[in-house]
Amino acid sequence: MIRVGVMGAAGYAGAELARILLSHPDFELALVTSNADEGERLDAVYPSFVGATDLAFSSHDDPAAYDLDAIFLALPHTASMARVPALLEHGVTVVDLSADFRLRDAATYERWYGVPHACPELLARAAYGLPELFGQGLERLAAERAQGTPALVACPGCYPTASTLASFPLVASGLTTGAVIVDAISGVTGAGKRASTRTHFCSANENLEAYGVGTHRHTPEIEQNLTDAGRGVQQVVFTPHLAPVERAILSTVTMSLSRPATTDELLALYHEAYDHTAFVHVLDGSQPRSASVAGTNNAQLTVVADARTGHAVATCAIDNLCKGAAGQAVQCANVVFGLDERRGLAAIGRAV
Amino acid sequence: MIRVGVMGAAGYAGAELARILLSHPDFELALVTSNADEGERLDAVYPSFVGATDLAFSSHDDPAAYDLDAIFLALPHTASMARVPALLEHGVTVVDLSADFRLRDAATYERWYGVPHACPELLARAAYGLPELFGQGLERLAAERAQGTPALVACPGCYPTASTLASFPLVASGLTTGAVIVDAISGVTGAGKRASTRTHFCSANENLEAYGVGTHRHTPEIEQNLTDAGRGVQQVVFTPHLAPVERAILSTVTMSLSRPATTDELLALYHEAYDHTAFVHVLDGSQPRSASVAGTNNAQLTVVADARTGHAVATCAIDNLCKGAAGQAVQCANVVFGLDERRGLAAIGRAV
Amino acid sequence: MIRVGVMGAAGYAGAELARILLSHPDFELALVTSNADEGERLDAVYPSFVGATDLAFSSHDDPAAYDLDAIFLALPHTASMARVPALLEHGVTVVDLSADFRLRDAATYERWYGVPHACPELLARAAYGLPELFGQGLERLAAERAQGTPALVACPGCYPTASTLASFPLVASGLTTGAVIVDAISGVTGAGKRASTRTHFCSANENLEAYGVGTHRHTPEIEQNLTDAGRGVQQVVFTPHLAPVERAILSTVTMSLSRPATTDELLALYHEAYDHTAFVHVLDGSQPRSASVAGTNNAQLTVVADARTGHAVATCAIDNLCKGAAGQAVQCANVVFGLDERRGLAAIGRAV
Amino acid sequence: MIRVGVMGAAGYAGAELARILLSHPDFELALVTSNADEGERLDAVYPSFVGATDLAFSSHDDPAAYDLDAIFLALPHTASMARVPALLEHGVTVVDLSADFRLRDAATYERWYGVPHACPELLARAAYGLPELFGQGLERLAAERAQGTPALVACPGCYPTASTLASFPLVASGLTTGAVIVDAISGVTGAGKRASTRTHFCSANENLEAYGVGTHRHTPEIEQNLTDAGRGVQQVVFTPHLAPVERAILSTVTMSLSRPATTDELLALYHEAYDHTAFVHVLDGSQPRSASVAGTNNAQLTVVADARTGHAVATCAIDNLCKGAAGQAVQCANVVFGLDERRGLAAIGRAV
Repeated sequence: MIRVGVMGAAGYAGAELARILLSHPDFELALVTSNADEGERLDAVYPSFVGATDLAFSSHDDPAAYDLDAIFLALPHTASMARVPALLEHGVTVVDLSADFRLRDAATYERWYGVPHACPELLARAAYGLPELFGQGLERLAAERAQGTPALVACPGCYPTASTLASFPLVASGLTTGAVIVDAISGVTGAGKRASTRTHFCSANENLEAYGVGTHRHTPEIEQNLTDAGRGVQQVVFTPHLAPVERAILSTVTMSLSRPATTDELLALYHEAYDHTAFVHVLDGSQPRSASVAGTNNAQLTVVADARTGHAVATCAIDNLCKGAAGQAVQCANVVFGLDERRGLAAIGRAV
Repeated sequence: MIRVGVMGAAGYAGAELARILLSHPDFELALVTSNADEGERLDAVYPSFVGATDLAFSSHDDPAAYDLDAIFLALPHTASMARVPALLEHGVTVVDLSADFRLRDAATYERWYGVPHACPELLARAAYGLPELFGQGLERLAAERAQGTPALVACPGCYPTASTLASFPLVASGLTTGAVIVDAISGVTGAGKRASTRTHFCSANENLEAYGVGTHRHTPEIEQNLTDAGRGVQQVVFTPHLAPVERAILSTVTMSLSRPATTDELLALYHEAYDHTAFVHVLDGSQPRSASVAGTNNAQLTVVADARTGHAVATCAIDNLCKGAAGQAVQCANVVFGLDERRGLAAIGRAV
Repeated sequence: MIRVGVMGAAGYAGAELARILLSHPDFELALVTSNADEGERLDAVYPSFVGATDLAFSSHDDPAAYDLDAIFLALPHTASMARVPALLEHGVTVVDLSADFRLRDAATYERWYGVPHACPELLARAAYGLPELFGQGLERLAAERAQGTPALVACPGCYPTASTLASFPLVASGLTTGAVIVDAISGVTGAGKRASTRTHFCSANENLEAYGVGTHRHTPEIEQNLTDAGRGVQQVVFTPHLAPVERAILSTVTMSLSRPATTDELLALYHEAYDHTAFVHVLDGSQPRSASVAGTNNAQLTVVADARTGHAVATCAIDNLCKGAAGQAVQCANVVFGLDERRGLAAIGRAV
Repeated sequence: MIRVGVMGAAGYAGAELARILLSHPDFELALVTSNADEGERLDAVYPSFVGATDLAFSSHDDPAAYDLDAIFLALPHTASMARVPALLEHGVTVVDLSADFRLRDAATYERWYGVPHACPELLARAAYGLPELFGQGLERLAAERAQGTPALVACPGCYPTASTLASFPLVASGLTTGAVIVDAISGVTGAGKRASTRTHFCSANENLEAYGVGTHRHTPEIEQNLTDAGRGVQQVVFTPHLAPVERAILSTVTMSLSRPATTDELLALYHEAYDHTAFVHVLDGSQPRSASVAGTNNAQLTVVADARTGHAVATCAIDNLCKGAAGQAVQCANVVFGLDERRGLAAIGRAV
């Protein structure tokens, strides 16, 4: 068994990691940390774990972390990069769910996150963990790890995962022109575990609202991904929304077409991009439902050509905590440790 | 008292009309019709009316309709235009909530609705019922009605109400260029009362999905409204979404700016357009929450300039059944009958 | 106009009071207080008030309270009784929504609330504000107030309102025997505005749970009410539950019958008790739906005889914030000020 | 691999069976039937299966059923008993999720279900599938099946599963007296897949209501189970409720104690009953949350002594579709086929 730990396991992404890892056939969850809940049992904080584990939280400073094969870091940005160098030095592979190693350019990081990067020299070492589109970086890490070098995976944000999957094949084809318009809707787990007016049931329920218009930090990450499609610098107008569901990202990406194209022609691009993957499924003639992927590492997506206006509208649904965070992190860890990427990841969502 | 009736009162918009009209100080609700529920009491179909009315449904063919001062038509499209000519001939003012008289061009109607218009000669007579932007038409009807000519109001669709309010001032200013991207989210009442797989609690709950991509019939209505802003023909890429709330439209409109502009400059346009109105409120520095307008005839909206990409993002929240249907219909009826437009319409939504 | 204020207007019951009072034809809302939100505008804290008021919160110590005709106290228990004596001394009528003056016996108060009562001499002066069953006390206050003595109304708790309405007529008939079993379900507004793990959307949504089993402080209040039915001391086994709705109490009361009885016979008792009231509606042959009374001051209830087991099951639905708190408080204030009890209170809930 | 099929797989319990069986390491799902959806792919009806199976529905009359090792019958009552004899004759083990073989007394069946039993001679052969309390029957079936006799399992109803688990240890101890009061709350999946006014999102959402008061058909099943506890005939007053969650039963059982007892004493009875089981977990000092068991075969429960009134209140949470239907059916099938009862059943629910 590969011995792993989760730092920040009391948060939502961390708890989802614990859920997956406790059932994983190859990973053994040996450590969960939380400064706020230090000493508490995991099943006291989250009763869904009753009967499944006796683990209790230790603090983030628990030196036991250094004895593990890998650490999943589910800490806020800046807290994450403060711990990565020491973990790597101790030979621990790091799968980081924060934003700290996603942007390759330290200046862009500073512009959007408001702080200088603490270890910019590690940015080139990290690989971006979206296996279906950027698998080479993970393969590089796997090869290095096999030679004894601990890996550093920068797991994508939830919005960038869905938005990039939705638009990358079309942008890469060169068929798009102008800014990419991303309107995406998130479930409330995306706002994190902290209790606030915004996450109060009576505020979030029966309510729809946009937030962070023009300023959301996932914007440069989507732009980096789409620019990596090789068709020039891509600008993204990104508007996130909050809706009263627990786990979901539905990303709707509107792109101007540089020449007329049919829906079938566009769908063919997506099938070519994704039909060989385990988790990304292209729908023909129906729209993705976020409920169909909740609790799974799957993405479902489709694209429609609006011939009348010369635009394409691509939509992608994922579970923000799973394919958008913990599930994808485990998928990346599987790759880095040379396992089948599907190990330990549920294939089928609840029908209802 | 002005004696009115609601045809199609068993549907959601019809029931909301009944709720408002039963409390209206100047209108007396004298007739509710439903072919499916003929003979049933209103409070048996909707127990919220228990203790408030003894009304029972008669059929749509009840000749009592011809003795009323006004009929609110909450029927599906085509069913509506089948009844309008006879009502007008009997001197009954018609406030039509269907799509049948919204589009001024019969050919556009036929293209999007798939049937020829039954009475195209009435299209010019109708006035479009969005008082804050197109009040002159309603004033014309009020003047004609005062002279004895029954009025015909074409009430806007729910998506067009929110989307037009969100974008009209900016389009009218000439600051926009290119297609207008409208991504809007509706509550489930927007799908109507008919029980179906899609409206089943267990399908709609915890789910987000787009639908009708590129084909939704509200598209030409938004285009007509924005083209009426006088800055050339406007094309709209419209993607509606469904989210698990009961009453809401949140419309997010992304527009490309023809020159740099600040958020303050854009907000000034919106304040100028709406500060004199009773129901449309411009928010400075916060995003509209659909929960804040649920159950009311209010719209809350704002606009943000994304200087980095040269776009503006305007957002508007309404209650799809109220400002998006029944409330706006009563507002229009108030105007047509020479009353204060606020009569009988709740001013304050539930804080929670 | 009768000039009134709300202390604790930033909480949910307080905000609901503000919503009702701002539209009330006879009351003028002149003061809203909140220590935490002092200086903030009401419409900044609750955007549903945008366009409806310019009121801003002052502190609870604002001396302007002493110049008003009445204060609605929406403060926690103990905070409430700390302010009542001074208000009364200044001639201000107090409508108290806390628990401080509900229990007539100071020792019972101390046993359940864990603190001695601060002004037990006022307990006899207060009247319990459930007008449909205990109207005489309020009539006494109205008469005293007309003579210049400020009134003190102790508004019932939400659970006691629904549970007492559901069971009082049957207990009063002498047909019941043994303990009264009350299982009730509350919406999340009942847990108050404070953000906590329990009220986080992702904890409360898709979850059902009981709480406070055997210890909930509304228990002695229900017992006092049912004992007042005059059939001996009544013991109540009360189990409250939380469900993911915003505004609701559904109280299900199971009582053992002392002799066989039919549903019709039981319903007749309820009709006799409530058919003359404005807000309490007895349903024949259907079960109350909490959605039908949400946002209103109505209660809907019914009773069923289970002949097989010799029990009766009565059910009552109210809106916990309205009939269970703010609406009933305004109803009581109407009575105390000699107005029609229905003034300013919406009669019809949303059909959907 | 043991080859199995699901009849009635288009319903909610059937789809949940398909979800579990498609991931089961020992069962191979070879047949799914639905008369209404014959010819449709499973993943077209439920998109959560996209990428996981190519199965399509055949009709209930598909003779392929007779070649399988076992059939899970997720058909309505009466439809189920019409098919059981032929399946058994063909040597097919039947795990029946309907009510048809739960009640051992055919006369009781006829009284509550309104039709005579079609094959009363099979009632004694069937074993009731609540392994934690009635495991001997299933062991008998396993032994018989090993000798070549196909098994017939009568899976419990969802309410009886939760209500029996909650109260059996206490009833069996002899500490209770008088009628057992069961108030239970179900999620909307319990109302089945059929679209109706009652299951429409806009009816079920934000609503709480009781239904079937005094008449619900799960009543005699709970009574049979509790009478099997060996402390005399038990009468149950059962009131089910509907709340806006998808998957949940929360059963609250109030019992009169025949002598004073402490919570600790009662909890000890429950620990003794359940600590050796895989799926039933007794909570000390906290109340079960239905969210913690959703999607799993777990039950969480606790009991509280209300010394003041001499009652005990036991509460149990399960997922109505899983431990209350499909999960428990697979658990029973595991036992009957000699497998570990946990095979293929998720142990850990979502933390959020």
